[in-house]
Amino acid sequence: MPTAVVLVECPDQRGLIARVSALVSSLGGNILQMDQHSTAHEGGLFFMRLEFGYPDSLERERLESDFAGLARELKAMVSVRHPAPRPRCGILVSSHTHCLSDLLYRHASGELAMDPVVILGNHAEGRRWADLYGIPFVPLPREGREDSEAAILERAGAATDFLILARYMRILSPAFLEAYGRDIINIHHSFLPSFKGAQPYQQAYDRGVKVIGATAHFVTGELDEGPIIEQMVQRVSHRDDVEALKRKGRDLERMALSNAVRAYTTHRVIRHRNRTIVFE
Amino acid sequence: MPTAVVLVECPDQRGLIARVSALVSSLGGNILQMDQHSTAHEGGLFFMRLEFGYPDSLERERLESDFAGLARELKAMVSVRHPAPRPRCGILVSSHTHCLSDLLYRHASGELAMDPVVILGNHAEGRRWADLYGIPFVPLPREGREDSEAAILERAGAATDFLILARYMRILSPAFLEAYGRDIINIHHSFLPSFKGAQPYQQAYDRGVKVIGATAHFVTGELDEGPIIEQMVQRVSHRDDVEALKRKGRDLERMALSNAVRAYTTHRVIRHRNRTIVFE
Amino acid sequence: MPTAVVLVECPDQRGLIARVSALVSSLGGNILQMDQHSTAHEGGLFFMRLEFGYPDSLERERLESDFAGLARELKAMVSVRHPAPRPRCGILVSSHTHCLSDLLYRHASGELAMDPVVILGNHAEGRRWADLYGIPFVPLPREGREDSEAAILERAGAATDFLILARYMRILSPAFLEAYGRDIINIHHSFLPSFKGAQPYQQAYDRGVKVIGATAHFVTGELDEGPIIEQMVQRVSHRDDVEALKRKGRDLERMALSNAVRAYTTHRVIRHRNRTIVFE
Amino acid sequence: MPTAVVLVECPDQRGLIARVSALVSSLGGNILQMDQHSTAHEGGLFFMRLEFGYPDSLERERLESDFAGLARELKAMVSVRHPAPRPRCGILVSSHTHCLSDLLYRHASGELAMDPVVILGNHAEGRRWADLYGIPFVPLPREGREDSEAAILERAGAATDFLILARYMRILSPAFLEAYGRDIINIHHSFLPSFKGAQPYQQAYDRGVKVIGATAHFVTGELDEGPIIEQMVQRVSHRDDVEALKRKGRDLERMALSNAVRAYTTHRVIRHRNRTIVFE
Repeated sequence: MPTAVVLVECPDQRGLIARVSALVSSLGGNILQMDQHSTAHEGGLFFMRLEFGYPDSLERERLESDFAGLARELKAMVSVRHPAPRPRCGILVSSHTHCLSDLLYRHASGELAMDPVVILGNHAEGRRWADLYGIPFVPLPREGREDSEAAILERAGAATDFLILARYMRILSPAFLEAYGRDIINIHHSFLPSFKGAQPYQQAYDRGVKVIGATAHFVTGELDEGPIIEQMVQRVSHRDDVEALKRKGRDLERMALSNAVRAYTTHRVIRHRNRTIVFE
Repeated sequence: MPTAVVLVECPDQRGLIARVSALVSSLGGNILQMDQHSTAHEGGLFFMRLEFGYPDSLERERLESDFAGLARELKAMVSVRHPAPRPRCGILVSSHTHCLSDLLYRHASGELAMDPVVILGNHAEGRRWADLYGIPFVPLPREGREDSEAAILERAGAATDFLILARYMRILSPAFLEAYGRDIINIHHSFLPSFKGAQPYQQAYDRGVKVIGATAHFVTGELDEGPIIEQMVQRVSHRDDVEALKRKGRDLERMALSNAVRAYTTHRVIRHRNRTIVFE
Repeated sequence: MPTAVVLVECPDQRGLIARVSALVSSLGGNILQMDQHSTAHEGGLFFMRLEFGYPDSLERERLESDFAGLARELKAMVSVRHPAPRPRCGILVSSHTHCLSDLLYRHASGELAMDPVVILGNHAEGRRWADLYGIPFVPLPREGREDSEAAILERAGAATDFLILARYMRILSPAFLEAYGRDIINIHHSFLPSFKGAQPYQQAYDRGVKVIGATAHFVTGELDEGPIIEQMVQRVSHRDDVEALKRKGRDLERMALSNAVRAYTTHRVIRHRNRTIVFE
Repeated sequence: MPTAVVLVECPDQRGLIARVSALVSSLGGNILQMDQHSTAHEGGLFFMRLEFGYPDSLERERLESDFAGLARELKAMVSVRHPAPRPRCGILVSSHTHCLSDLLYRHASGELAMDPVVILGNHAEGRRWADLYGIPFVPLPREGREDSEAAILERAGAATDFLILARYMRILSPAFLEAYGRDIINIHHSFLPSFKGAQPYQQAYDRGVKVIGATAHFVTGELDEGPIIEQMVQRVSHRDDVEALKRKGRDLERMALSNAVRAYTTHRVIRHRNRTIVFE
């Protein structure tokens, strides 16, 4: 039985769940999981994730048009996702490969429902992992953001559904973000909003914090200000110098990024303004 | 608008959510929150928690009989709960009062949706907290389980909807459990199933664990074997002697027990065999 | 056998531990615990905490003058502390009493080696806890920082060795800080340096973080910028509205503040510039 | 300047630190870090870890014989370790390679002060990682414990200083343990002492725990009963089926095992009866 995921966002109103579930029933479908969230703040919004199986005989077009009709009725934003084919992703990396190698290992283990179709890096280290897993590697120029971004667009623009910045240590330009136009997930090596920008572990050391963190978030035009998907934290002490913070932080980065990617690729994340709803 | 909570447990089958939400709509109700969980293991079971508002004009009897009808149709166990009146609880305590004082502070702060109607203790320390919050205190005999249990039944039997064992250091007899017949929540000062029975912190010290825990669970006839509702854990090291483990453990006990009671009193806990579903 | 704690801070140099431990031996003392920390950064600094027993016959003056001599030799800052008498503290509070009641419960349980000699509050709620534990309560004026600070100085100036701000929701003036001249420990209800200033849980909600925190730190003239002693964190989700963040945060505040006070009163904290060394 | 680490274990007695640090001074050494732990329980024992630099001109034999002399005086067990050459390790693995690949990545990143000299596995998967990092791979027979253990002894007996069982899913015989005679570190995929033996995640699911864990420990003749070095834990819920527990557990296993190996290879672990002292 094929399955679909529907994400709904609309003003809160009576009978929403009944109408949505009645539509699924009328299509011969069977709800496998439903999560919803409504908020009294922000003017009463309703968010829903619906995962259901449907008969082979039901065509995707019919499914999507029926939900589009419901969306008009409810004044809702409705997005229908299909687990297959899995989203294609491009991974950008610099010299630090711990997130890249971790993502690829997890992918190969069946943990991540995506297809990594290209790895792009401005250091040679990335190629080793691309080769190990048989994924094309595109070297990016070390200098020149424009050239670099042009190369990314050429090789990962049409070919990918989303990008992962796996410790890609450059800022993407607003022009690139607009041109790419799809989701980009970044891992920032601090507990945002603390320690934005460069050298966050040095900043954390200087401030003398007793807990460090890592943050996976969507990239927006404002540096390190995009909607947060996942954060991981760990205790540290005065014994931890900057190198120790970096080492401990690598574990947090790996976990925060892979958790975020897992949630994203199973269509569990709804962006709303500068926040996320992450259904479990 | 009054609200109700409905808990459903039944064999998984097509259209469950649609039927339940259609019933709520037909009663003029509005679903505020719905959580469900189904499991492919254990023969395909479906669990749901539904919170909804309904019109003042709808009588509780009507509401309950309609859901009882649905239960028969679905071969489901359906339980309808009303937030008001809040469940009445009795709290049993010995000489350690940290959980008792914590529960009462949280209750007075509006954190816990229950009415503590009686505190029963076999040490004098409990009275201080009962008096501070104006709750009747019943002293229990220090010796003699039968007398003690008779006193509990007399004072907290009909008067309470559930009991909390807030570090009540005695084992309740099977006869008592049967006579009381309602839920009893205990806090055990270890990370169950490790270190059942007496002196768990000493056991933890002897085994040399690097993490300790506390476990809130339903009481059953088998000591420390009931369904787990909540567990909290904390790192320890070789520097922590048994006294330090006890001190750190008290924080875990307070949090595990109060989290469990909060979930329970908001009707978020479904017991199923020896496990729990705890909706958030 | 009486015990003393010595805290040492000096430029790193050869033979430091040998010289300090030789001095303890020459006084007939026995080292019970020694912790040290040296840093290659910041020009090579050495920090030590030494706890030792010494003969009844050794006078405190002799002990202190011998260590003062050593301090001159090593160009070190040496501070000799005696566990008895315990440090006297004043606790300042507003309407939120969860930290106050927690500190007093822990103190009564023997967890905190201090003498709370006065509680000062600008709301009536504090008095209940002062009365319960038999500690004098000083009401502070609700309006007028100058009057309020004058009252604090009068009642807690000479009478206390340090102050605890247990959710005291006012900013102390530089003039007050200078006049008081001793350590003040504050609990801030965010994971500093994120969300300084007012309404940190609202700020955290608006930013959409997935982890919240609480921070205990020394008060300095710059708001929420003093050296951090302890931080506690907890996961949250989109389901947590501001009220839920506040509720979860109260547990973090209680634990961060009590951990900080425990470390401070057992002379385990060394302030160095804007950081702390916290020996375990 | 060369450095050495000395581990001391002896009955607690006056002046221990002074004598040890005087010896270091007399050898022209400079203490870089000293940690000690004494316990009032278990008859008053004293444990110390001492890291110091010493002059090039001092021969290792002289250093070791001087400490051996001190050991006799103090009735102490004293072990002198040299950071170089680094300890050689053999890694045993079955079909699950997540711990193996993690250890090798960390080693290549400079996180682990050891030399992995051989990888032995009873499934082909291990070879991929051995090849990637250029370490010899020894296939073990799938059947027959005796043959397997003979192969391990032959290839990793004299050639290694310790062994790591990186999810090696077989029980080593007492005869093997005796023949190998050095330390063996295992990762067990549960929060010991809960869920010893086979299928711990299934056991955890069946018991309905709300937190899972992983445990790195020394191997002894009693299955899963050896001294614990490190434990990591993570919250789970009713939504996590056995597969989800396994996935979440892999992160815990990686971290617990690598933390244990890092502590062990920097000579921070002292085994004492069935417990460990792990200096930070």
